[in-house]
This record gives sequence, structure tokens and C-alpha cells, in this order.
Amino acid sequence: MAKSKSRPVIKAGTGEWSQVVDDLVAEAPLEIRLGGTPLAVLMRTPGDETDLIMGFAITEGIVIHPHEIESIVPVPQDPDDNRWELVPADGVDIDPKQFQRNMYTTSSCGVCGKASIDAVRVTAPDLPPGPKVDGQVLLGLISTMRKGQETFEVTGGLHAAAAFQADGRLVAMREDVGRHNAVDKLVGALAGQGWPLGELIMAVSGRVSFEMVQKCAVAGMPMICGVSAASSLAVELAEELGVTVVGFLRDGGFNIYHDPGRIVGPD
Amino acid sequence: MAKSKSRPVIKAGTGEWSQVVDDLVAEAPLEIRLGGTPLAVLMRTPGDETDLIMGFAITEGIVIHPHEIESIVPVPQDPDDNRWELVPADGVDIDPKQFQRNMYTTSSCGVCGKASIDAVRVTAPDLPPGPKVDGQVLLGLISTMRKGQETFEVTGGLHAAAAFQADGRLVAMREDVGRHNAVDKLVGALAGQGWPLGELIMAVSGRVSFEMVQKCAVAGMPMICGVSAASSLAVELAEELGVTVVGFLRDGGFNIYHDPGRIVGPD
Repeated sequence: MAKSKSRPVIKAGTGEWSQVVDDLVAEAPLEIRLGGTPLAVLMRTPGDETDLIMGFAITEGIVIHPHEIESIVPVPQDPDDNRWELVPADGVDIDPKQFQRNMYTTSSCGVCGKASIDAVRVTAPDLPPGPKVDGQVLLGLISTMRKGQETFEVTGGLHAAAAFQADGRLVAMREDVGRHNAVDKLVGALAGQGWPLGELIMAVSGRVSFEMVQKCAVAGMPMICGVSAASSLAVELAEELGVTVVGFLRDGGFNIYHDPGRIVGPD
Repeated sequence: MAKSKSRPVIKAGTGEWSQVVDDLVAEAPLEIRLGGTPLAVLMRTPGDETDLIMGFAITEGIVIHPHEIESIVPVPQDPDDNRWELVPADGVDIDPKQFQRNMYTTSSCGVCGKASIDAVRVTAPDLPPGPKVDGQVLLGLISTMRKGQETFEVTGGLHAAAAFQADGRLVAMREDVGRHNAVDKLVGALAGQGWPLGELIMAVSGRVSFEMVQKCAVAGMPMICGVSAASSLAVELAEELGVTVVGFLRDGGFNIYHDPGRIVGPD
């Protein structure tokens, strides 16, 4: 399925109205199955399904290492490619109940299925010291990410998540109608390609929320930068887990909300 | 709890870094209980909890009418006001299992807990013809909404949802770190005050997604306008349910994605 769909749209304003054909960002439900049993539905932008499901399994703590997953395959006879099967590797036992209890059942929220405040925080690994990044390098990350955002340019409706090396080189970028899906797609792509997650910087096109910090930390990435604001709880979780949080990365500046130790400032 | 929290933040750019005190949008988990049993956790901006829980119950189809709810009260001895009890009215029976199966378990995603694509769409009432709005009135809605957005001005991190009468008069506005929470708070406030939802127009500060259209329709509101893009599935659902969808309502124009019949254009 395509990432965008063309539709007739009426453009209105102060003058005449006109009918044009416009591109809308595609959104469709993705059902994740284990042993044929549906376990979760995510609303997502079609494409990169193996990355999304791999990343979701990692950032929600369902698996620790990508090699615990044998394959991620579309269910045959589904013309829309909206149903996918997660096949664990030989000897890896994922109990469906465990899956349902531990996961959030959607990547666009982060805390679903947790019927208790006390259980909100999922286990994150100890984070490595991570990259040491020059502040000047940070300033260029978003424009690099935007250049790769093809669908955004067309539809204006997609979130992006990208990973960078400490020198600012783009490693991978993924898009989705859901912010958390974009992060999951990115993490899944990086893990699938064997990148050392602890050495990379994550940048996201929007806000840095609690769940974004949580996904980042559970994936073992020690630094997240957002174009927009960070929330109070995101920063509190970052303090607890040791994640560097940068917000408002735009217009030639940025805010460091926690742990400036990974960022090199002016002399 | 306050809607924002002050924190020390490092402001960085091309020149010197400086440490300032900044306001961050507050984010905290809200646990909804029924008969003492925790049923769901939402990440939300503190405040307007009764509106949020009322609206959530309505837009997720847990109750049809506000009078099915006797009261929504904070759990005693919770200093953070993060645990709330939904008390059904006399004679109204809400089965916790029914609640958990039918609801999405978070208002920031909309499809959680639905372990099947076939079950994604919840039942919406037949929508009334609704308001007939002049396109010139639509052009002014967002600036009216923004004027009421106090916390956004401070933190830059909040989504808003507002309801308007057909002549552009603001009826109510609510904010939240989660877009869907803002809609739920708004619907809960309107329903609690006895407003005829079918006569009002909803405006949201961001994107019009599938779940936004779904919440709008289930609440019985026939028209939703967003500052940003609409997704393909949102428009397909709007066609199915008869919701007027307006997107990119900004810069003196807007796009009509479905049903221009409720909007009066130029002669």
C-alpha cells in the first residue's frame, strides 16, 4: 500500500473555491499476530512493516535482541497487507499473555494496557556513555532529516524519526502518521541492520513525551532530540534513566533539558 | 497539579549557552477506576479530570448519555490526584470487562485493546444535519482558539480542541499534551454542561486522524476542522459516518475533505 492516497479536495479561502486533487497521508490498521492469534492493532502509515513490528517488539520490551525474532511476514490472502505474523526464533518462547500484559497494545500511545500507574515504566537497560556530539552538529540534524522526508513534502502530515552518528551523518530515517510508530520503525530498522544503538542520536520531528523517552531508553539509545517541546514527565524519566533530552531544536538553537554531558558547547 | 512545571534548562545556540528557568508542559498518568478496580491509564496534562473521564467514556462508547454517570471523583489519599473513580448512576451497570473490551485503554491512540482490524470502528450515532457555517466564519476559528490557549503560550507543548457555534462564537476550549485527550476533555465539558453536540463545530490544533473523526462522530458532532492535514482513513471514515472534515485551516484558507454541504461558500 502506498504512503499517500490521492483524493479530490475543495480548496477554499477568501475568494473562489476550487476542486483539486490532493495527496493525503495514508493511515491503516496493522494487526500483529503471534501463532495466528491477533495480539495488537496499531494505526500506522503503510510501509516498513517489518521495521515497525521489530521496533515495537524491542521498545515495548517483548524481545531484547532482534535475533529472538525469526521473521516477520504478512499473513497470506490479506490483499491490504494489514495483518502480519511475528515468528519467534527456534527456542524462543513468547507467551501471548505475557505479550499482551507487557506491551502497550499501540505504539501511538505508549501506556495502553497498563492498568496501573505503578507499572508505567518499563525496564530499560543501563545506558552506555554514548556519543559526544558537538552542539554545532546538533543544529544541522533536523534539516538533514527533513531532506529525507519525501512523504511529508507531499502530504504535510507525517512524523519522522531519524538516527545520526556523532558527526551528524544520517544513518536511517522513517516516517509515520503516528509519532511513536516512526520511532519504532527507526529502531526496528537500526536493530535489523545491526547498528550499535548506544552510539547513535535519535531525532524526532515533534515533541519529546514520556513515551518517546521510554522507547528511546528501552532501545538503548542515550540521546533524543525533538523539534518541539519536552514534557515534564519526559524529563523526569530521562533523569531516572540517564537519557539526554534536547528540545526546540530549530531556528539555530536548542534547549537541553537533561544531561548536557553528551553535548560539546562553545569554549 | 499544575498544567506546567518550571525547570532549569540550558539554552544553546551558535553563541554562549545560558541556564534559564523554563516552563514545561506537565504530563502525568491518569488511572481510571470502576468500583475500585483500575481499568485504564492515560498519559495526560493534569487538570479537567472530570471532563476528560466523562468525554473518554462518551467518545469510546462506554456510556451514551452523561446522566449514566453519577460522579467522577478523585481517589482519596492520592496526593497527586492521578487516580479517579468513575461512579455509574443508580441502575446503570458498566461491566468492567465490557469497559476494557470496548474502550481503547488510552485516548492518545484510539485503537488500543482492539485486537482485530474488524473491530476498529466503534458504533457512532446517526449524525444530525448539523450547523451550516459560513466559510468566512471558519477562517476565524483558529485564532479564537489560540487566544484561549494559555498554557500553549507558556510551554509551546499543548494541543487544543475547541467547540464553536455556527456563528463562530467559542463555546468551550480544552488543552492537553495528548491530542485525543484534548478532544475528550472538550466533549466531556460540553456534555456535562448540556450543550447540543450536534449543533456545534469542533476545531483541533493539529492533524485530523482516524481516531479524531471517530471520537467526533461517536460524540455526535458532525464537523471537525484541523489546523493540519487529514489522513486518508480519517476521510474514508468521515464518508462512512457523514462527518464534514476540514483540514489546513490556516493562512486564510482551508481544504474540505468531505461534505461541503455544511459550509457556505462564496456566491
